[in-house]
Amino acid sequence: MLPPTIAWVDGRIAVVDQTALPAVRVVELGTVDELVDAIRRLVVRGAPALGAAGALGVALAARTMAGSELAAAADRLAAARPTAVNLAGGVRRALAAAAAGPDAVLAAAREVLAEDVAACRAIGAAGARLLAELCEARRLRLQTHCNAGALACVEYGTALGVVRALHEAGRVEYVVADETRPLLQGARITTVELAALGVAHHVVVDGAGPSVIARGLVDAVVVGADRIAANGDVANKIGTYPLALAAARAGIPFVVAAPESTVDPATPEGGAIEIEERAQDEVLPGGPAWNPAFDVTPADLVTAVVTERRVWRPSMAAGDPLLEVR
Amino acid sequence: MLPPTIAWVDGRIAVVDQTALPAVRVVELGTVDELVDAIRRLVVRGAPALGAAGALGVALAARTMAGSELAAAADRLAAARPTAVNLAGGVRRALAAAAAGPDAVLAAAREVLAEDVAACRAIGAAGARLLAELCEARRLRLQTHCNAGALACVEYGTALGVVRALHEAGRVEYVVADETRPLLQGARITTVELAALGVAHHVVVDGAGPSVIARGLVDAVVVGADRIAANGDVANKIGTYPLALAAARAGIPFVVAAPESTVDPATPEGGAIEIEERAQDEVLPGGPAWNPAFDVTPADLVTAVVTERRVWRPSMAAGDPLLEVR
Repeated sequence: MLPPTIAWVDGRIAVVDQTALPAVRVVELGTVDELVDAIRRLVVRGAPALGAAGALGVALAARTMAGSELAAAADRLAAARPTAVNLAGGVRRALAAAAAGPDAVLAAAREVLAEDVAACRAIGAAGARLLAELCEARRLRLQTHCNAGALACVEYGTALGVVRALHEAGRVEYVVADETRPLLQGARITTVELAALGVAHHVVVDGAGPSVIARGLVDAVVVGADRIAANGDVANKIGTYPLALAAARAGIPFVVAAPESTVDPATPEGGAIEIEERAQDEVLPGGPAWNPAFDVTPADLVTAVVTERRVWRPSMAAGDPLLEVR
Repeated sequence: MLPPTIAWVDGRIAVVDQTALPAVRVVELGTVDELVDAIRRLVVRGAPALGAAGALGVALAARTMAGSELAAAADRLAAARPTAVNLAGGVRRALAAAAAGPDAVLAAAREVLAEDVAACRAIGAAGARLLAELCEARRLRLQTHCNAGALACVEYGTALGVVRALHEAGRVEYVVADETRPLLQGARITTVELAALGVAHHVVVDGAGPSVIARGLVDAVVVGADRIAANGDVANKIGTYPLALAAARAGIPFVVAAPESTVDPATPEGGAIEIEERAQDEVLPGGPAWNPAFDVTPADLVTAVVTERRVWRPSMAAGDPLLEVR
């Protein structure tokens, strides 16, 4: 049983240190600076968890700051990582309560966390239903990338929430988890979750993901998202796009599971998403290396985006895809 | 200046230990068993170098064995790795001279090496000419995977031979090298060669390769091959297929540079190629992991196969593509 990924504990933010996994270590963050540093170093990661971190960070700041000082702290938090829209969203939600005082900010932040828990369970159920409809096999062989599980959220998970819901129904044969270089979230984090759930799984190098699909070894791909543009283009961890290319060629579903808060109506399409470029030393100490943290999967390769509110099929949409509600 | 990748030195086989790179260490192999072990552990690797190793291995065996004993040693050598057709080809070439005695076997093996050197230079020149024709840019931004350089051959290289020929003509802006997990041949070996040549380069994680292409950061992909089926399907290091998918979608050339000996007329199509499954510990110590060493890129995604004899365009061929000679 894993501890909560992120929680408010006695005026501090307690998080499972994602850089220490597979070892489970909880660290407490008592200042905005500590939290910003933790977000940059990926001690806290995962789009939904970043939303919770942004909200709780503002709650932390509101205990000692107000007015323009609080707003500046909120800005620093929101800018700690540029690609995930949830971080800025969580900051904004909590900050909107600032006029009513620190307790109101904390209550707003707690609401962000509670909504994430509810959203993950709804996404899991809807994604499981969708995959059961889309795939013929009774027991599914699923592929995922990076970690979009409980450890990327407050609990339960998005893409792994779908896996979990299917597993609870006895419908998972195994999961193929890409290791997800450079930081190995798949090998270090997803495997910990799948083992805890008792789901059979196999890790592959990222380069092997597409040929695993081509060889017919999986029935569907299910991943999370860091930002989804209004047209259905999906920014997710680097290495997601090749799976979408391979899934399209193989004719198997490529499903994105993410809370509605990941969809950014202000981003018209994927080309407008800023792709975070991280330090080259993560890839090759001393370099020379490029280290983009995300890639963009075009909407036409996305079979469906499953949120807590809808199953959105951007590649099939006629007219405004945002209007399509299941 | 790097030492020869593989050479016959005083009755032994001297090879650059590929597992030690970027440190350059030459090891000498004095028995067939040592050579088989070195091939399995990838101390010797790269399809053309494996052809040389197979031939020199038979020469080594022929110094102390003959008849059925020699044939059995040759079989063990040929089976040390299943996917690269060159290994078995080199063994066969040298063994064919066995009736004439050990000196004849060695001469036949030396011929395999000399042919590889000549082939690489011819491939480099032809590939450079082709890419100059196919790409509009004066200075090319090229992507490669794994290592198909001098260190995978006797000297000069195949895919990196093309890079080298273009570089010598002042026509390379930079090379993007996938790191190539699990054994990091791109990060450890290709970078050493490119640095020695003075070619600007950037390493990326394998998951980033396809989006580097999608973002318009490269003009063409050039890779080697371990086996090419009669229909043009290409087996190469795991992680090659995603680049081909991305190149096709982006409309940039995907070029395979390999000696004619890599083309196996006995393999009708990619589905008939045995994909070596290596130890899971290379991916994730203790597992659970799958570790396929190669993937198959279907012929329709291959812009051209450049050998020392021809530029073969399987995706454009009408009729028997083997007949198409430039």
